[in-house]
Amino acid sequence: MTMLDIILDKRYGRKLSDEQIRFFVKGVTDGTIPDYQTSSLLMAIVLNGMDEREMTTLTLEMCDSGKKNDLSYLDGIPVDKHSTGGVGDKVTPLLIPLIATFGVQTVKLSGRGLGFTGGTVDKFESVEGFNVEISQDEFPVLAKSCGMVISGQTPDLAPADKILYSLRDVTGTVDSIPLIASSIMSKKLAGGAKAIVLDVTCGSGAFMKTPEEARELSQAMIRIGNLAGRRTVAVITDMDQPLGRTCGNTIEMQEVYEVLNGSGSSDLVEVVTTLAAHLVTLAQKDIYGNMEELVAECRRRLLNGEALEKYRLLITSQGGRLSPTGSPLYREYPFDAMHVNSPANGYVTRIRADVIGKASVMLGAGRLSKGDSIDYGAGICFYAKVGDRVKRGDTLCSLCHGENAKIDDEVLFDVMNLILDAYEFADTPPEPRRAVIDVLS
Amino acid sequence: MTMLDIILDKRYGRKLSDEQIRFFVKGVTDGTIPDYQTSSLLMAIVLNGMDEREMTTLTLEMCDSGKKNDLSYLDGIPVDKHSTGGVGDKVTPLLIPLIATFGVQTVKLSGRGLGFTGGTVDKFESVEGFNVEISQDEFPVLAKSCGMVISGQTPDLAPADKILYSLRDVTGTVDSIPLIASSIMSKKLAGGAKAIVLDVTCGSGAFMKTPEEARELSQAMIRIGNLAGRRTVAVITDMDQPLGRTCGNTIEMQEVYEVLNGSGSSDLVEVVTTLAAHLVTLAQKDIYGNMEELVAECRRRLLNGEALEKYRLLITSQGGRLSPTGSPLYREYPFDAMHVNSPANGYVTRIRADVIGKASVMLGAGRLSKGDSIDYGAGICFYAKVGDRVKRGDTLCSLCHGENAKIDDEVLFDVMNLILDAYEFADTPPEPRRAVIDVLS
Repeated sequence: MTMLDIILDKRYGRKLSDEQIRFFVKGVTDGTIPDYQTSSLLMAIVLNGMDEREMTTLTLEMCDSGKKNDLSYLDGIPVDKHSTGGVGDKVTPLLIPLIATFGVQTVKLSGRGLGFTGGTVDKFESVEGFNVEISQDEFPVLAKSCGMVISGQTPDLAPADKILYSLRDVTGTVDSIPLIASSIMSKKLAGGAKAIVLDVTCGSGAFMKTPEEARELSQAMIRIGNLAGRRTVAVITDMDQPLGRTCGNTIEMQEVYEVLNGSGSSDLVEVVTTLAAHLVTLAQKDIYGNMEELVAECRRRLLNGEALEKYRLLITSQGGRLSPTGSPLYREYPFDAMHVNSPANGYVTRIRADVIGKASVMLGAGRLSKGDSIDYGAGICFYAKVGDRVKRGDTLCSLCHGENAKIDDEVLFDVMNLILDAYEFADTPPEPRRAVIDVLS
Repeated sequence: MTMLDIILDKRYGRKLSDEQIRFFVKGVTDGTIPDYQTSSLLMAIVLNGMDEREMTTLTLEMCDSGKKNDLSYLDGIPVDKHSTGGVGDKVTPLLIPLIATFGVQTVKLSGRGLGFTGGTVDKFESVEGFNVEISQDEFPVLAKSCGMVISGQTPDLAPADKILYSLRDVTGTVDSIPLIASSIMSKKLAGGAKAIVLDVTCGSGAFMKTPEEARELSQAMIRIGNLAGRRTVAVITDMDQPLGRTCGNTIEMQEVYEVLNGSGSSDLVEVVTTLAAHLVTLAQKDIYGNMEELVAECRRRLLNGEALEKYRLLITSQGGRLSPTGSPLYREYPFDAMHVNSPANGYVTRIRADVIGKASVMLGAGRLSKGDSIDYGAGICFYAKVGDRVKRGDTLCSLCHGENAKIDDEVLFDVMNLILDAYEFADTPPEPRRAVIDVLS
C-alpha cells in the first residue's frame, strides 16, 4: 500500500478502504507521510468527498492516534458538548453550571479563540486567577470536589487531528464536511464522553452558512457518533448575528453573570436551555420525561440563581476570584471607547457576525495567529440586534478596549466602519428567526 | 496576495488571475511557497481545471522561470518535436536524420525513461561512446558541423516545471490536461523553437487513453503555442500497442538501423514520415507544397539510405562508434532468453502497451525510480502485432536481456505471464487502426 495510490484513488473519486485510511492516519501521526502528500489527499477529499463509512473510519483512527480520556471517575454518564464556533458564543460558561444543578458532572476541554471565532478558554481566563491549565491528574480531584472542570485541550488527545488541522488551515482545506465532522468527532470520542450534544452554528458567523449545510454536517456527525456507539444529538443554532448582547472576553463573562442573575437575552437563553435539556436527558438526569417541561425547568434554574451558585463554585474551584458581593473579578475591565450610531431609521435586518468577529479582533479581543496576545477588556456591546427598531443617531453598539490598553483612533474609526457595514436596515421588520433552528438525532 | 487565497480561489472553482499565477510560479521557483501548499493547489487544479488563459499564463511563467535557449545559430527556422511518451517509441532517432535530409537543423533535448515510458537519451546511450551530455556551449559547434544535436535536458530550462513535475509525480497530480499541457509547452518554449510538432500518443501505453482525450490535450497545447506566438501542430498517434517491432534500448536502436536500411514496420514508418513532413513544412523547407507528396518523399528518404547517411553522421559526431560496415556498435547486445508462444489460434486484437512497458522494465530495460541503472541489452521483440493471425504455439515475442546481464528464471516467467495478459485474441480480425489518428493545428 502506498500513499500515492491512496491519493490517486480519492483523486478519481473512489472510496478509500479502512486499511487505506488507517495507513494514512498512522503515517500522518508518525510523520512518515510527507506534508505535500497529505495536503494533496486533503484537497482530493474536499473536492471528491467521503461517504459515511470512510468518515467514521477516519474519525476512529484519529481518535485512536493518541491517548483517550477515561471519565469513569465522574458520577453518572459522561456527556460532552461541542460548538462549531461563533461570535459572542458564551454558551459553555452558562451551560456547565446549569446542568450541574441537575447533578450532571462534566470535564469540558475547550479551545482558545482564533480568527473571528472566540474561545471559551480565553473567556474563563479573563477572570482574575482562573487557571485553565489543569493536568489530567487533577481532573478527578476537581470533578469530585466541584463536579465541573474547564480545561484547555490536552495535546495528547487525537494528535493526528491536530497535525491535519494545522495543515488544513494553510492549504485551503478547512471547509469540508467529512474533514470537519471527523475532526470534531475524533476529539469528542478521545475526550471520553459517552453521549454528545453538538451545537452546530449556521449563518454568516459560522462555517456552515445555511441551515441545509448545517443539517448535512449534523447528520454526518450523528452517524459517526452512532456508529462509534455514542448517543449524539445536534442542535442547529443561528449564528447569522452575534449571540447575546456582547462579544469579547471580560465583556462576555459580564453578560454571563447578568444572565445568571436573571436577565438574559432571549436568543442566548433559548440556545443554552435547549442544549442543557438535551445534555440532561442524555445523562439520564431528566426528572420530567418531557422535553418541553425540561427546557422550562432549565430556564428557571438558569435565571433564578441556582446555576449562579454552581457558577461561583466553578470559578473559585479553579482559582478564580470573586468580589465580596460574589461577582467575578476580571484581569482587565472594558473601557467604553466609542459608540456607533445608526445611520438610518428603520428595523435592523441583519448584523453580519463574521464582520463583527473581525471588528472584535481588530479591537484586540481575538487573535489572527496562534500565540498572539489578546486584550481581555476589548469587545463590543450591542444595543440594537436584528428585529430592533432604531432611529437615526441611536446607539447600535459600543466599542471597548481594556482600561489599561491603548487603541489608535484610526483603528477605532476603521472598526466603526466595519460595524456599519455589518448592520443592515429596512423599513419593515425582518422575518423572525429562531435562535434554535432545528434539533437532529 | 497570499498562496492560501490562491488555493481557495481554485478550490471554489474560480479562475486565477495572471498575477496570482505569476505569484505562484515565482514562489515555487524561489522556494518561498512550501510544498504542501503547492500540492494542495495542484490537486485543486486537477479537479477544478484551468481555462485557456490560465494555462497559457502558467506556461509562459514556467518558461520564464529559468534560462531560455537562443537557437539563432541554426540555419533556418528552429523547429522542435515532442512526444507525450509511449512504449517502443523510437521516433526521434529516425526523425532527426530524416528532416536533416531536407536541410532542417535541430537541437533536440530529450529525457530518460521513467516507469513504462522509454527515453530517447537512454536509446542513444546504448550506442558505444555516444555522449548525450552536451554542454550549451557545444550546441552551436555541433549544429554547424553536423546540423543535428541530441542532448539530455539542461537543468536550467523551466526550473519551475521541474520542481512542479517532481511534486506532481508523488502527489497524484500528473494526470491533468492543464498541468500536462503547460509542462510540455513551457519546456518547448524555453527550448527556443519557433515552430513545434507535438506527437500526442493515445491508448493504453499513453497518458491519454482515448482519441478524445488526446484531442483535448492537443487543442490545449496548440492554443498555448499559438498564444505564445509559435506555430504548433499536433499529430495524434496510436499508442494502444507498442510502436514498431521492438521495445528496449539497444534492440530499438537495432530496429532504427533496419528501418534506415529499408525495412520498417508500417505503423512506425507512418508516424515518422507524418511528423517529419509537418516539421519540414513548419521549417519552410517543403519543396512540394503538398502534404501528400511530401510524406511520400519523406518515406523515400527514410528508407532509401539518405536518412541513414545523416544518422551515421549524427552518431559519430557525438562520439558514437560504428562497425567497419557502418552499423552502430552497442554497449550491450540483446541476448534472446525466452520466447513467448501464443496460447490460442486466431487474430491478435490487442497488445496492451502499458503492460508491455511494465514487462520491459522488469527485464531491466527501464527504471522504476530516477537513478536506477538499466540493462541496455534488455527488451522485447514482437513477432505478432495487432491484426496478425497466429496459431497456437507460434512465437508472439521474444524476451531479451543483455549478454552480460543475468536474469532470474522466475522473473522471466513473471514477464511471460504479463505478456500473455497483454495479448488478446479473437476469431475475427480487429478493426484496422491507423497509426496516425488525426492531425490538428
